[in-house]
Amino acid sequence: MRSTVGWAVHEPGSPLTPWPFTRRDLRDDDIAVQIHYCGVCGSDLHAVRHAGRRDTPLVAGHEMTGTVTAIGPAVTGLKPGDPVAIGNVVDSCGNCTACAQKRENWCFGFPTLTYGGRDRIDHTLTQGGFSGEYVARERFVHALPAGLDPAAAAPLLCAGVTVYAPLRRWAAGPGKTVGVVGIGGLGHLGLKYAHAMGAHVVALTTSPGKADEARKLGAAEAIVTTDQAAMAATKWRFDLILDTVGVPHRLDPYLQALKLDGTLVTVGAPPQDWQIDPSSLRYGEKRLTGSGGDGTRMVRDMLAFSASHNITADIELLPATEINTALDRLERNDVRYRFVLDMTQ
Amino acid sequence: MRSTVGWAVHEPGSPLTPWPFTRRDLRDDDIAVQIHYCGVCGSDLHAVRHAGRRDTPLVAGHEMTGTVTAIGPAVTGLKPGDPVAIGNVVDSCGNCTACAQKRENWCFGFPTLTYGGRDRIDHTLTQGGFSGEYVARERFVHALPAGLDPAAAAPLLCAGVTVYAPLRRWAAGPGKTVGVVGIGGLGHLGLKYAHAMGAHVVALTTSPGKADEARKLGAAEAIVTTDQAAMAATKWRFDLILDTVGVPHRLDPYLQALKLDGTLVTVGAPPQDWQIDPSSLRYGEKRLTGSGGDGTRMVRDMLAFSASHNITADIELLPATEINTALDRLERNDVRYRFVLDMTQ
Repeated sequence: MRSTVGWAVHEPGSPLTPWPFTRRDLRDDDIAVQIHYCGVCGSDLHAVRHAGRRDTPLVAGHEMTGTVTAIGPAVTGLKPGDPVAIGNVVDSCGNCTACAQKRENWCFGFPTLTYGGRDRIDHTLTQGGFSGEYVARERFVHALPAGLDPAAAAPLLCAGVTVYAPLRRWAAGPGKTVGVVGIGGLGHLGLKYAHAMGAHVVALTTSPGKADEARKLGAAEAIVTTDQAAMAATKWRFDLILDTVGVPHRLDPYLQALKLDGTLVTVGAPPQDWQIDPSSLRYGEKRLTGSGGDGTRMVRDMLAFSASHNITADIELLPATEINTALDRLERNDVRYRFVLDMTQ
Repeated sequence: MRSTVGWAVHEPGSPLTPWPFTRRDLRDDDIAVQIHYCGVCGSDLHAVRHAGRRDTPLVAGHEMTGTVTAIGPAVTGLKPGDPVAIGNVVDSCGNCTACAQKRENWCFGFPTLTYGGRDRIDHTLTQGGFSGEYVARERFVHALPAGLDPAAAAPLLCAGVTVYAPLRRWAAGPGKTVGVVGIGGLGHLGLKYAHAMGAHVVALTTSPGKADEARKLGAAEAIVTTDQAAMAATKWRFDLILDTVGVPHRLDPYLQALKLDGTLVTVGAPPQDWQIDPSSLRYGEKRLTGSGGDGTRMVRDMLAFSASHNITADIELLPATEINTALDRLERNDVRYRFVLDMTQ
């Protein structure tokens, strides 16, 4: 077994503390990665704050960049010293329709999550990237393209692909008008990607103070959604709207802002039901869908696109020893736009 | 002006009685149609029961078949004696994106409805097909193909196109598994069309007693939706589900029954918000949309398809004098599957 140290929650609700634990010895297609950077995602905060007694000790973290330190004998695409990245899925059944499409995040046998999942072979609980080393199958370890800052690239592995994938799948590009609702960890990357894809990008925010910032991030326009006249003027305007807001809110204004056959993609995960007026969907045959991360094909496409357009997250870099500060501040929404921890400190 | 007689509601909530009224003299592109048959739709029932005092007298009815009796000088495609059909829209702005696509039902300037609408030129209230004659622009009067029984074809003009359009738009056909939820006026036609398009059709019903009937209508299988084991087995099964139910219900079981990227189309119009678990949409990137009728291009495509596959509604034909009986029975759901009135009796 391989020894490492992670920042773990031991008692539900208590701060994270260093915890020595082991990773598995390398299987044939495994890769060991020294973790340099790990992003802090809202789902990490949720996992840490809501960990049950049976789930602890738990090490969260699923937006990692680092360097290959060792490989199993069947690994062909990566070698020690290569810069790499790992996201929120580290294994899947490999046999279902979703896996065949390399959309392992929807694996019909449920994907093995990077932490809090069950390894498919030894059935141990997986532990995440707030640690010194990770071991995963080659399929789920991605080469990090040259030119991407490894600290600012870490959040691309979850936040990045979460917004990149629906923009790609729903064909954001030249001639399209794309709205991005919510300018936070997800939304600020949505603005960058949609702009880089060539769309006319409109930021939709409740915060008048974020309008200038949204323009710097790639928006051609910013609309304050509490301005009823401005929202009324959006009717039939958008080909695609990407809604990144994670708290309960009405979707009807965004559905009504879509063109005929337009699509609203929600990537936030509010804890309550959506409540939707049936006529908002029916009138103009609007489409509502959800999305949440993506599989290995899209992650690699996203990394290549990010490198060629020089896109990374806007981050605040903290040493790993500040992990509890990062979580506390994230809980208060006090970050523009994403915390990344230096796991070597 | 042209004299005719309609079955009108005069006082909110009172029975319909014969009412002599006038149609406009023919404009250049107008066609006068002697109405032979008119279907009775749930929306007619709603309009008649909820007509306000300012809306009366009101003549409902928007699923008509009949014969051309006169044409304006600019009419080129139809002549007196031709069998024709009229649906729920009789005019639109003609200039917007929706009209350009012949999807006039979503006209950005709002379509002129067959009754209870405002004529775009003289601003009078439109009166519907529970009457002896209708006058409409040629664009909205459709040739009725030979071989279609004009009584049983009448409901195709609303119920028919309402289910045909989403099946076509979402590509029901060979190799596709299509669910139809609700086996009533809309659903029974959904089964016929989806079967004729070559899909593997599954009826989804709360009524065990309708399973045999669903098979006769084109379903390869029938699933009783209250059977939890049967519903659990539907996970990841359907390319497309057409939900025709007009009363409030949960959509989550149908979203979960879709394949990756599958689509749920709702064509019913329940009076309350949909309440949807966000994870039902997110997991597998399911798509939810609504639909409601369609425009002149799709209506003509639907009529041609219906003629070539010999599809009409299963109807109960009553003389126009029985219109109040038809409405009362429709209110109790006592019809298989659609009432049609003989307007010549």
